[in-house]
Amino acid sequence: MAAAIPAAMERLIRMLSRLPGVGEKTATRFAFHIIEQPPEYAEGLARALSDSRREVGWCSRCFGLSESPLCPLCADPSRDDSTVCVVEGVPDQVAIDRTGAYRGRYHVLHGSLAPLRGMGPDDLRLKPLADRVLAGGVKEVIVATNVDVEGEATALYIRRLLEPSGVRVTRIASGVPMGGDLEFMDQITLSRALECRREM
Amino acid sequence: MAAAIPAAMERLIRMLSRLPGVGEKTATRFAFHIIEQPPEYAEGLARALSDSRREVGWCSRCFGLSESPLCPLCADPSRDDSTVCVVEGVPDQVAIDRTGAYRGRYHVLHGSLAPLRGMGPDDLRLKPLADRVLAGGVKEVIVATNVDVEGEATALYIRRLLEPSGVRVTRIASGVPMGGDLEFMDQITLSRALECRREM
Repeated sequence: MAAAIPAAMERLIRMLSRLPGVGEKTATRFAFHIIEQPPEYAEGLARALSDSRREVGWCSRCFGLSESPLCPLCADPSRDDSTVCVVEGVPDQVAIDRTGAYRGRYHVLHGSLAPLRGMGPDDLRLKPLADRVLAGGVKEVIVATNVDVEGEATALYIRRLLEPSGVRVTRIASGVPMGGDLEFMDQITLSRALECRREM
Repeated sequence: MAAAIPAAMERLIRMLSRLPGVGEKTATRFAFHIIEQPPEYAEGLARALSDSRREVGWCSRCFGLSESPLCPLCADPSRDDSTVCVVEGVPDQVAIDRTGAYRGRYHVLHGSLAPLRGMGPDDLRLKPLADRVLAGGVKEVIVATNVDVEGEATALYIRRLLEPSGVRVTRIASGVPMGGDLEFMDQITLSRALECRREM
């Protein structure tokens, strides 16, 4: 960068370029946009950042986002305690809950097993999941980790982890998505769709 | 959004989605990323925002970014006072200065003439430009506004504005860019390249 960019702004650009999918060019565009706005915007964004990081924590039961020890989804008495849906992250939890098709509880792992990236079982919230199940009251654990190598490995690990409890462990279906054109589906998806075929 | 996203985070997402090119989905991804990082990141970003907005202002002469009344480019005694390069924004100034091909002064307009978007001559730093030129010492003004309808209109306006001063007003060349394949150039660029042809 040329001498025209002050140090405080270089720091801002460096911080912004750590956002996912944001490189130096985009971060620079963000920073210029912020500087050109009325000062209320930068101040408001700074406050929203501090507030979020201070007020928002993890639910002590499901490890989803929460402003109190128990998140609204865990505190809601109308939800079904006997089913726990296990997800990798909060965005997955939000996506599933938005469907309205699920009224049970959740458990957020905060990642998936990825030995190559140094993510082992102790880095995920697996122990609290086993404890929740062993405490009783849970009849079914639906494993809704991603349908990729890491998500599948995590699902297998969970099945083995919960085997001693005797609880039913299910996996979300995988196959051709709605609107999917068979011609353009990859081989693994098609094989999976065939393998998991159902009576109709 | 489902009930799983706390209010402080909704605020953060709303603020982030005002960044250029960032929609609600990207803002949500940024927010989740920020929450998952160690708290130092959110705090550091918040501080960088406040610092930038507080420490960085506009140079009183060229209206580029500056941490002091006069920016480093205006304060540098080795630069040529007789040439002023007029740009629409600071990113343009940075891009030109990075080439190393220009050693004169700058003047940042902070926009271009766009009557449909309500940007008239009084919304740009045109008056200070005229004052700078009238104060004497300037021999050439290079208009480096964008080569689009608004940039061209702004360039024409500047030429007329500075006519009484008798100072030489030039425009950056426009034509086929380096590596440009004639086959894929638009008609306006090609016509311009032909029209502005030079002896060789």
